[in-house]
Amino acid sequence: MEPIIVKYVEKPELKDPVLIEGLPGVGNVGKIAAEYLKDNLNTKLMVEIFSKYLPPQVLMKGDGTLYLVRNQLWYYKNEKGEHDLIILVGDYQGMSSEGQYELSYKVLEIAKEFGVKKIFTLGGYGTGKLQDTPRIFGAATNMNLVEEMKKYGVYFSESEPSGGIVGAAGLLLGLGMEVFDMEGVCLMGETSGYFSDPRSSYGVLKVVKEYFNLDIDMSELKFRSEEISEITSQIKEEEQKEEKKEDLGYIG
Amino acid sequence: MEPIIVKYVEKPELKDPVLIEGLPGVGNVGKIAAEYLKDNLNTKLMVEIFSKYLPPQVLMKGDGTLYLVRNQLWYYKNEKGEHDLIILVGDYQGMSSEGQYELSYKVLEIAKEFGVKKIFTLGGYGTGKLQDTPRIFGAATNMNLVEEMKKYGVYFSESEPSGGIVGAAGLLLGLGMEVFDMEGVCLMGETSGYFSDPRSSYGVLKVVKEYFNLDIDMSELKFRSEEISEITSQIKEEEQKEEKKEDLGYIG
Amino acid sequence: MEPIIVKYVEKPELKDPVLIEGLPGVGNVGKIAAEYLKDNLNTKLMVEIFSKYLPPQVLMKGDGTLYLVRNQLWYYKNEKGEHDLIILVGDYQGMSSEGQYELSYKVLEIAKEFGVKKIFTLGGYGTGKLQDTPRIFGAATNMNLVEEMKKYGVYFSESEPSGGIVGAAGLLLGLGMEVFDMEGVCLMGETSGYFSDPRSSYGVLKVVKEYFNLDIDMSELKFRSEEISEITSQIKEEEQKEEKKEDLGYIG
Amino acid sequence: MEPIIVKYVEKPELKDPVLIEGLPGVGNVGKIAAEYLKDNLNTKLMVEIFSKYLPPQVLMKGDGTLYLVRNQLWYYKNEKGEHDLIILVGDYQGMSSEGQYELSYKVLEIAKEFGVKKIFTLGGYGTGKLQDTPRIFGAATNMNLVEEMKKYGVYFSESEPSGGIVGAAGLLLGLGMEVFDMEGVCLMGETSGYFSDPRSSYGVLKVVKEYFNLDIDMSELKFRSEEISEITSQIKEEEQKEEKKEDLGYIG
Repeated sequence: MEPIIVKYVEKPELKDPVLIEGLPGVGNVGKIAAEYLKDNLNTKLMVEIFSKYLPPQVLMKGDGTLYLVRNQLWYYKNEKGEHDLIILVGDYQGMSSEGQYELSYKVLEIAKEFGVKKIFTLGGYGTGKLQDTPRIFGAATNMNLVEEMKKYGVYFSESEPSGGIVGAAGLLLGLGMEVFDMEGVCLMGETSGYFSDPRSSYGVLKVVKEYFNLDIDMSELKFRSEEISEITSQIKEEEQKEEKKEDLGYIG
Repeated sequence: MEPIIVKYVEKPELKDPVLIEGLPGVGNVGKIAAEYLKDNLNTKLMVEIFSKYLPPQVLMKGDGTLYLVRNQLWYYKNEKGEHDLIILVGDYQGMSSEGQYELSYKVLEIAKEFGVKKIFTLGGYGTGKLQDTPRIFGAATNMNLVEEMKKYGVYFSESEPSGGIVGAAGLLLGLGMEVFDMEGVCLMGETSGYFSDPRSSYGVLKVVKEYFNLDIDMSELKFRSEEISEITSQIKEEEQKEEKKEDLGYIG
Repeated sequence: MEPIIVKYVEKPELKDPVLIEGLPGVGNVGKIAAEYLKDNLNTKLMVEIFSKYLPPQVLMKGDGTLYLVRNQLWYYKNEKGEHDLIILVGDYQGMSSEGQYELSYKVLEIAKEFGVKKIFTLGGYGTGKLQDTPRIFGAATNMNLVEEMKKYGVYFSESEPSGGIVGAAGLLLGLGMEVFDMEGVCLMGETSGYFSDPRSSYGVLKVVKEYFNLDIDMSELKFRSEEISEITSQIKEEEQKEEKKEDLGYIG
Repeated sequence: MEPIIVKYVEKPELKDPVLIEGLPGVGNVGKIAAEYLKDNLNTKLMVEIFSKYLPPQVLMKGDGTLYLVRNQLWYYKNEKGEHDLIILVGDYQGMSSEGQYELSYKVLEIAKEFGVKKIFTLGGYGTGKLQDTPRIFGAATNMNLVEEMKKYGVYFSESEPSGGIVGAAGLLLGLGMEVFDMEGVCLMGETSGYFSDPRSSYGVLKVVKEYFNLDIDMSELKFRSEEISEITSQIKEEEQKEEKKEDLGYIG
């Protein structure tokens, strides 16, 4: 079999398209953001990707039918902005280092076909801590983009993320710049990493919305984001109570 | 070496054949069912498959001779039904994700050659519990098959199997529908998952027998199934006694 | 790079040659036996095999120089017997399932070139126990060989080795019979599996010596074998003393 | 994608060049030494290597920009010595056995293009102990080099390194001698293995400097080396105090 099977559903003409990636990862921040984009913009499916680098698995749809795990590209004709979008979503990332490279490379080949020159990858930055307001960290392929993104409130830190960026969010940018002459930025929402974190996705997506001047209703994601805020506050309160008790106990 | 070595023993003409898979897996439910079919119908060996994706191992026949681990296709001319059968059995599934994909893909290529348009995959659904009467869960490639299988008492659940279906039982259907234009259904017998479970296989095979109108003597599998029922009852009784003792102990 | 690099040192004309394999494995029984053959017969190096399926490692010769890990084929012109020998030795077996298949396949291709029709693979059968006199178990590709080897005192058991034979000792026979039309036998000396076991190798090699009518001085291996016997006796005595003490303690 | 992507930045004419390798490994001894060479000689980047055998990762530069993990070749025109240098540095070694082989093979192919006939690989030899003055161990592809290197104070031991040399430092020599007709030596600085050890690198690099008559300022590495010496002394003192206390305690 071909290691990666690409099925073109449609080959649209796109206006200076930007690739936006959001695959499963830390806190599923990127996945939630990209799927929200896909579901709340008027997007159409253009490409399906199956591969032996993905898990050997089918998933259930809930009605008794199943589907093979996959990655997908959806496009959006952005009337109000300069850039149409190609959104990469999927059930899984590649299972091995080599699979990660092969899948990212293939996506970039397809993106190139449609004229992509810029990439946004979305992800989470796991801190192991519950944050009050998660910051959005950035990393870019060049200084111009670093400066540009700072205007949107994105943090660029000397030391973070300290281990670099692993997986598709990093590779698409790395291979994009080295092999496909593309530039790009990775947006990483702070997240504890303990659960799926739509609040962090909300922060990431707000940057995307503003940057691309997207006409997208953010209310549902905002709602889910506020739920996370409440839960976080509650947990923090509990923790503080616990700490006080312990303090008293220690004194007593 | 070729990654997968296919040896054709015979190339029979088959009447609208259906592929039935039963390889090792949870409770060996599929394997036991498919091998019972193979052994109790008038089947003939048609294809042998060796591969570097299988373990590097030979097994003993019991008479001092050995054989290389393999998968096999056997065919059955079903005079009473519309469909001849091709039965996939084997010592192992692929050892890696990639091996799983490659082996399933190759089996589908061979099946296509012989005109297969429909696939039944048989497996176990591990619950971690001893069941009184194991249900047969299903998952299909389309709603028509879902509805059709319900008539045979197959359960289709919104949420089960929750992790999807991993391995050949899933992949043959997933790749079959996406690449080979085949439809199919996976039948999964409930099983504890702690031991080989012919009772669960019996339940699965009864559906297959009825669906394909097979003239097959089920008595031996029924016997092995009843043994499991007895053992299960005994264990459950013991457990209840234990629980009562514990209850008394707690009260006392 | 080529996955397997084969360097021919010499291409001798060989008389109905038999391939004898002894690579590292349980108790290094096969390795010790095959290397003893190589070192104590008048053998010459014919083929060297390097491969990315072997560990990425060089080993030290003891004089400050190093060498790349490899497998080797040595040949022996057996004036007194019907069969010349090709002896397969090496630092390692393949590191992965796929590597095991690829390496065994390549060795068989080379063996075929030189006219090999029969294979002897040598190995250990790990029992986890200290044996007084290790038996030699066998497994063969056909019943003729089973019967023939019984005359040399080789045991063929219905149930042992229960897990089959893993690695080159099994694969060379399995691929040999299925793909290269070769027959063969695996000789497995019982061994605890806790240490390198020249005594078990001695038992295996005695069968090989008799079968091929080899003019080989076994004295050094016999010496090393007797050392193992002594150590085994000592350990057993100690164990019995311990047990007696415990018994007394229990009674007392 | 090509498994290994090679980008030539420059194709210089080089005078009988020697390849010097220092990739990450035990104590990062080789990496620190090779990067010090690269940074403190007048070197120029000639080749960049990207590969699916490296981790799927980008790293941060500290200014908000990122780069794809890679290996690099830098060259140095050595006016005072007979040999120009090609220095191999990188973020990682290959992730799998096969990747190790493939990457080393590719580097040797490139080295051959530029006329390399000799290789120096630099690494650490992990002892698990804090040494006062780390020795430099050697291993070479032939006795001439062994004798030659002894003049530079390099130790060649019958038994060390006992497990051979794993990874690029070993493979470049092993594949170099077997496939590319190159000779070479591995220099291994003793190191505890518990931390990055510039002191061990200093020892290794002093040999390289003398051998190639390099005009290189060693002062910064010397400084970092002395820091390690101080830390080592302090830790040893602490340990001795601890031991004395324990001794007294035992007597008391």
